Amino acid sequence: MKFSPLETPLRTIMTPGPVEVDPRVLRAMCTPILGQFDPAFTTIMNEVMEMLRQLFRTSNRWAYPVDGTSRAGIEALLCSIIEQGDKVLIPIYGRFGYLLTEICERYGAQVYTIECEWGNVFAPEEVIDEMKRVQPKIVAIVHGETSTGCMQPLEEIGRACREMDILLVVDAVATIGGTEVNADEWHFDGVIGGTQKCISVPSGMALITYNDRIEKVVLSRKKVERGIQTDSDRSILAAGKTIISNYFDLSQLQDYWGPRRLNHHTEATSMVYALREGLRIILEEGLTERFDRHRLHERALIAGIEAMGLSLFGEKKWKLPTVTCVNIPDGVDGESVRHMLLHEFGIEIASSFGPLHGKIWRIGTMGYSCRKENILKVLTSLEAVLVYHGVHVNKGEGVQEALKVYIEQSKAIGAGR
Amino acid sequence: MKFSPLETPLRTIMTPGPVEVDPRVLRAMCTPILGQFDPAFTTIMNEVMEMLRQLFRTSNRWAYPVDGTSRAGIEALLCSIIEQGDKVLIPIYGRFGYLLTEICERYGAQVYTIECEWGNVFAPEEVIDEMKRVQPKIVAIVHGETSTGCMQPLEEIGRACREMDILLVVDAVATIGGTEVNADEWHFDGVIGGTQKCISVPSGMALITYNDRIEKVVLSRKKVERGIQTDSDRSILAAGKTIISNYFDLSQLQDYWGPRRLNHHTEATSMVYALREGLRIILEEGLTERFDRHRLHERALIAGIEAMGLSLFGEKKWKLPTVTCVNIPDGVDGESVRHMLLHEFGIEIASSFGPLHGKIWRIGTMGYSCRKENILKVLTSLEAVLVYHGVHVNKGEGVQEALKVYIEQSKAIGAGR
Repeated sequence: MKFSPLETPLRTIMTPGPVEVDPRVLRAMCTPILGQFDPAFTTIMNEVMEMLRQLFRTSNRWAYPVDGTSRAGIEALLCSIIEQGDKVLIPIYGRFGYLLTEICERYGAQVYTIECEWGNVFAPEEVIDEMKRVQPKIVAIVHGETSTGCMQPLEEIGRACREMDILLVVDAVATIGGTEVNADEWHFDGVIGGTQKCISVPSGMALITYNDRIEKVVLSRKKVERGIQTDSDRSILAAGKTIISNYFDLSQLQDYWGPRRLNHHTEATSMVYALREGLRIILEEGLTERFDRHRLHERALIAGIEAMGLSLFGEKKWKLPTVTCVNIPDGVDGESVRHMLLHEFGIEIASSFGPLHGKIWRIGTMGYSCRKENILKVLTSLEAVLVYHGVHVNKGEGVQEALKVYIEQSKAIGAGR
Repeated sequence: MKFSPLETPLRTIMTPGPVEVDPRVLRAMCTPILGQFDPAFTTIMNEVMEMLRQLFRTSNRWAYPVDGTSRAGIEALLCSIIEQGDKVLIPIYGRFGYLLTEICERYGAQVYTIECEWGNVFAPEEVIDEMKRVQPKIVAIVHGETSTGCMQPLEEIGRACREMDILLVVDAVATIGGTEVNADEWHFDGVIGGTQKCISVPSGMALITYNDRIEKVVLSRKKVERGIQTDSDRSILAAGKTIISNYFDLSQLQDYWGPRRLNHHTEATSMVYALREGLRIILEEGLTERFDRHRLHERALIAGIEAMGLSLFGEKKWKLPTVTCVNIPDGVDGESVRHMLLHEFGIEIASSFGPLHGKIWRIGTMGYSCRKENILKVLTSLEAVLVYHGVHVNKGEGVQEALKVYIEQSKAIGAGR
């Protein structure tokens, strides 16, 4: 069996991730590699840590990537602090809340959940009341739920966690780099960011940061170096005190990313190059400017979708700026529309999970995919596909409304000069 | 703080990994990405699985990468089959045997070890006798120990495991793609290969394959889909039956790599591109031809090292063809030699771990780094550095002996025509 050279179509990727990658990042990845302990490489590792601190808006000592996809970072943070029987409170407002639940239960936590209807989020006092009742060690929560397109405000919850001495772990996979994630100001103890969404670096690394409150727990569970050797080590292990995973043991990971440079794994060199360039692009653009740009394209997309005659799913007040959920019109086969968009127009948008499967489309406005030409292409193409499917839309109006948003924005910038 | 564009020196990497990456692989990585469920991408995933089967010489259904570094694959295979209290036998003949031990103990196995002196391997009957005594569920063993440069013959042990119905899990991280790894013929039930060594693809993926004996155990521990929902699920979890890790749960990974395509994680697209090209290069060269090439360069390196007046560490009979361990001459500061090789000649070689730290240098002959010009450069540069350090060497003889090996090889090929 012969295998041909890699050939891939060029797509316009407008899902909630993975999204298109900036050509600068792609080029950085083809840099010849360095050994992991080469001083030229450890310098790059340190630079990446400093850039991650800026991205997370934190002064935490620890901010580094975990080699694995986003959920590797979630599992690393949670499994390093959950001891057998620990109470964890998880407010669930979409699919990724269930993932947090599953990970915590697998690692032996006593999990308490509260749920709200998909398309909505929690009032902070609902969560805080439950915190008072349950008295958990940890609150784990999703910041932006790509499954429903909603974003949970976390400032008040963060303040309450700190006051009650509860650890707050936040899944910011879908928000980091696309909208505000102020780790320190909002009292996040541990945060996980994804690369393949608003950072626009290929999937394969999870970005984490955590403060000394988390580190204290991690170090209290630190395994003796060089394997289990004494009866005391064995009893710590038997008591469920030692971190179960070797790969995700933050005490070992920080000894590798820190000045001790203890060999834990072989760092994914090319992905680190990609991440460094991706972060550099973000910091060059400026975080505030980048968030504004995401909101601009979101506004144009929404204006276009609504002008076309379609409606949005979810409470607008809690809308996640990086994902727009569109109700599939009655009687329309959502998958057939997605198929035609992909195969005739080269555009990928997403469906959703569970109760929303077949009910909504999800369109991402994330990172490098979040560009004017992509928004306009989605609007014109979606209109054509819907018309082909016999759906009544206000022909030509979607793209015109989006254009207006862009032109007004240009004028506003011009006037501001 | 401003960050400059990525600038890296170009190194000759002659460690036991990570090693240099073929420019074809680097170029494949800068291919624009595809969505993970794009049919163009799932086709690539299937091709990678087929190439991995050829690489491992197996007809196993399951052969795919785990997104993480090599030890992610080791942990995935072991944690998916180890249940609380399971007996695991681990013969240890170097550092990475300890890693297997640590992972198994963390996941609650009752671990039995036998050890032999570093620089040696086990006679198969030693291991088989211990298997009879312990009656383990699993034998976990390293195929090639980069820490000592030794390779454990596994054919007899594999046959005995199958006869005794014991699961054999083999860490072939350092051997896959560089020397024979005949998974089916040698009765390996589960195997882990590394990318960053003889495959010469950047670190960040672990290659695994496993047969239906492993799959049967995995499926018996499969968690219900969509989280833990019933008391029965909870009791399975409490009994230590469910696989603890979500990220490394092979039952979920195979549902993602298989035709069900159930969303587990977002596949590391660019790394899959790199892996596909790396595997394509290997299959184009031919496995047998590739192993012969590795042995040729190993022979030239050894001839040069010995002609220079240096000696090898470890029993030659069990030498790992992809790593050559050199005794550091008495009174020489091994780290100073390595430092000078790196900073004056741009060459990286490795030191070793634990009892061998400061005693040996380790030189890899792996994958794309395993080229004539690299071998010759190591020999001439090492000689210069040793002379600078006041070591007596047979000046000029190392490189001449290596050249002879290459020239004789060329003549032999010419004569064979």
